[in-house]
Amino acid sequence: MSADFSAEAREAVYTAIARRRDVRHFRPGVELPAEVLERILGAAHLAPSVGYSQPWDFVLVRDRARRARIRQSFLRCREIEAERFSAERREKYLSLRLEGIEESSLNLCVTVDLRPTKEAILGTTVQPEALRWSACCAVQNLWLAARVEGVGVGWVSIVEPRVLRDELGLPPGVEPIAYLCVGYPVAFGARPLLEENGWRSRRPLASAVHDECYRAPLKQGDETP
Amino acid sequence: MSADFSAEAREAVYTAIARRRDVRHFRPGVELPAEVLERILGAAHLAPSVGYSQPWDFVLVRDRARRARIRQSFLRCREIEAERFSAERREKYLSLRLEGIEESSLNLCVTVDLRPTKEAILGTTVQPEALRWSACCAVQNLWLAARVEGVGVGWVSIVEPRVLRDELGLPPGVEPIAYLCVGYPVAFGARPLLEENGWRSRRPLASAVHDECYRAPLKQGDETP
Repeated sequence: MSADFSAEAREAVYTAIARRRDVRHFRPGVELPAEVLERILGAAHLAPSVGYSQPWDFVLVRDRARRARIRQSFLRCREIEAERFSAERREKYLSLRLEGIEESSLNLCVTVDLRPTKEAILGTTVQPEALRWSACCAVQNLWLAARVEGVGVGWVSIVEPRVLRDELGLPPGVEPIAYLCVGYPVAFGARPLLEENGWRSRRPLASAVHDECYRAPLKQGDETP
Repeated sequence: MSADFSAEAREAVYTAIARRRDVRHFRPGVELPAEVLERILGAAHLAPSVGYSQPWDFVLVRDRARRARIRQSFLRCREIEAERFSAERREKYLSLRLEGIEESSLNLCVTVDLRPTKEAILGTTVQPEALRWSACCAVQNLWLAARVEGVGVGWVSIVEPRVLRDELGLPPGVEPIAYLCVGYPVAFGARPLLEENGWRSRRPLASAVHDECYRAPLKQGDETP
């Protein structure tokens, strides 16, 4: 096969994918240079999108008071979620570091625009959810670009979408997809944090690959301690 | 900032992101070596996932008859979607090449496992949709890994999820996210296909970036011809 990427370039991409981490520990007070942020956002903006809709937006959140209020939502949600675990696991859950909302250099909310357009968006008639999925691809582009810049990203899903809508002034039909903490990390861990601290283990790739038809494996999570 | 990626390695990742295309024209009869497929799937499997759930599965579809039936669903959906466009745009829409289901080396359905688990999945209490979003991040990893291998990927969202569930034997609670055509492309276009053929134009990045609060821009699509 003719290849327009050298072996080294291929390796670089695989390494970025392998070393990307969900970062929760940031070096406080270290700001992101504007050109680094611009490159990372540019990478996100090159994501695939259904019907070339490019339905994402990026809201940069730096205001301390706003971040503190959003973190209050995290704390409320964490309390509610903790109740779902057994006593032993709950203690562990509450000991986990799950966000860096206030310590990170900035927060970044990736949103998706679901508002009706004058003309239908190609590809969304039978799968309207594809708009949200495009925004997720943008998140992953952003995450990988950040990684090669030495910038950490942490996705906070323990937060109320309603609070994000209010705090960021999202109009009806514009929905938050990802609330990200972005900044220089204390370190990029060798393994994912939830694997390193024994919360959950890596699933073997082979268990996720199926030929022609889905063979019913164990339900995911059933093999978890 | 200390950097563990060289300038060349960073550039490789940005280049992969910039040159990734939604491929619809495949070189028929050119198979993917098993080790290439394995590397691409391995990259997908390294995606971030909410609560380290790794909720994705990959169903490899090679069977010709199955692919032909799935393509019938595409044709039905395309006919329905075409009706949403003005006469002039409809003609253009119907002239677009939108899939390579039968010509590609293989089809690959990325699914997400939404079935209840014994223990709750961390991070899904307030945002259960995050499971789907994890699977989308896996798609983007796969897409970028494929790109540096010289392998093209095309996402077909014009297909009925019901047909995919039936054809791939997905159990209740396992949902298709992405139906992908995978194979060696005739070419990687310089620009996205829907931009190249004048269907829709690129949105300036600046219009997608907001400081602190969302400023209401034109609704997306309103500037489209």
